[in-house]
Amino acid sequence: MKAAPADVRDCERVILGIDPGTNVMGYGILGVRSRKPVMVAMGVVRLSKFESHYMRLRRIYERVTDLCAQYMPDELAIEAPFFGKNVQSMLKLGRAQGVAMAAALAREVPITEYEPRTIKLAITGTGAASKEQVRAMLVRMLAIPEESLLPELDSTDALAAALCHFYESSKPVKAKPSSWKDFIAKNPDRIKT
Amino acid sequence: MKAAPADVRDCERVILGIDPGTNVMGYGILGVRSRKPVMVAMGVVRLSKFESHYMRLRRIYERVTDLCAQYMPDELAIEAPFFGKNVQSMLKLGRAQGVAMAAALAREVPITEYEPRTIKLAITGTGAASKEQVRAMLVRMLAIPEESLLPELDSTDALAAALCHFYESSKPVKAKPSSWKDFIAKNPDRIKT
Repeated sequence: MKAAPADVRDCERVILGIDPGTNVMGYGILGVRSRKPVMVAMGVVRLSKFESHYMRLRRIYERVTDLCAQYMPDELAIEAPFFGKNVQSMLKLGRAQGVAMAAALAREVPITEYEPRTIKLAITGTGAASKEQVRAMLVRMLAIPEESLLPELDSTDALAAALCHFYESSKPVKAKPSSWKDFIAKNPDRIKT
Repeated sequence: MKAAPADVRDCERVILGIDPGTNVMGYGILGVRSRKPVMVAMGVVRLSKFESHYMRLRRIYERVTDLCAQYMPDELAIEAPFFGKNVQSMLKLGRAQGVAMAAALAREVPITEYEPRTIKLAITGTGAASKEQVRAMLVRMLAIPEESLLPELDSTDALAAALCHFYESSKPVKAKPSSWKDFIAKNPDRIKT
């Protein structure tokens, strides 16, 4: 059964997922309703029509600002590769990430970054999954209606970042002893005297 | 003779110079008064006290936003190296540049980037000048009072970017013929018939 996109006003928590690039920026709004993740909105910002690098950066900044104003996300999850082809492309990617982050920071929205591999692993169970596999899995998990899908895979990638953040932040925190001293203090019965 | 810093209200044009880094961000406000460059303000934002990368980015964004509100610059000149040690440092630098740019883009302040070499060449006459040489030259050229100088050289580097932009944008535009066809049209007497 396919569900209609959820209304953000019905959600107890909203996560904005962003996949920033210099040609296309993907975004996804994930809501949490009755502790379950639901798709609220997704889309892309096409940047290749702008010749100027600054016009592209400005567009990213404006759109993330608008998304924050419209959906009032509690958190931002951003897909952030830590390695790239060369220093030139990493500088450009860093700038695209920077302007997107600035829009969130201006509204005090906390940011968490996820490497593409981590997102793929969280969604599909394998860090080597293709973008198509990520999309197919998301469509099933969130019962995304066909008409919400765009040809660009950046939109599902962005929503996947938001869903990955939902899973990661829902994990129970393991109460690991932080040192032997702590361990001894917490487990006096395990000391051989 | 050392002059006091100029008042931005007396200036016909204001250029904000930024030298963004992940540990220190330098800034300089260059005014143009009676078509001559004058120093209005300069300073640094120390970022190393913030452990979180996002807190640093937020601080950069806030300070550039504040500088834009206080001095209402007509243009932003930014020192932007195009090559770095590795992809990791370039991604971080790109983010720092990105948040600074976002603050300017939000106010529709046009941005021009200059490579460190270009700035050094414009100020000292050599692209291989040291930061100390750039500072010494700026102090002389703009009659900067001793008490305005900070130990960090990032402040004079930022002001140098603004001054470089002043020189570059003041250059007369060369009326080069754009093609042989243009050249012939403009110079009919030079055609051998």
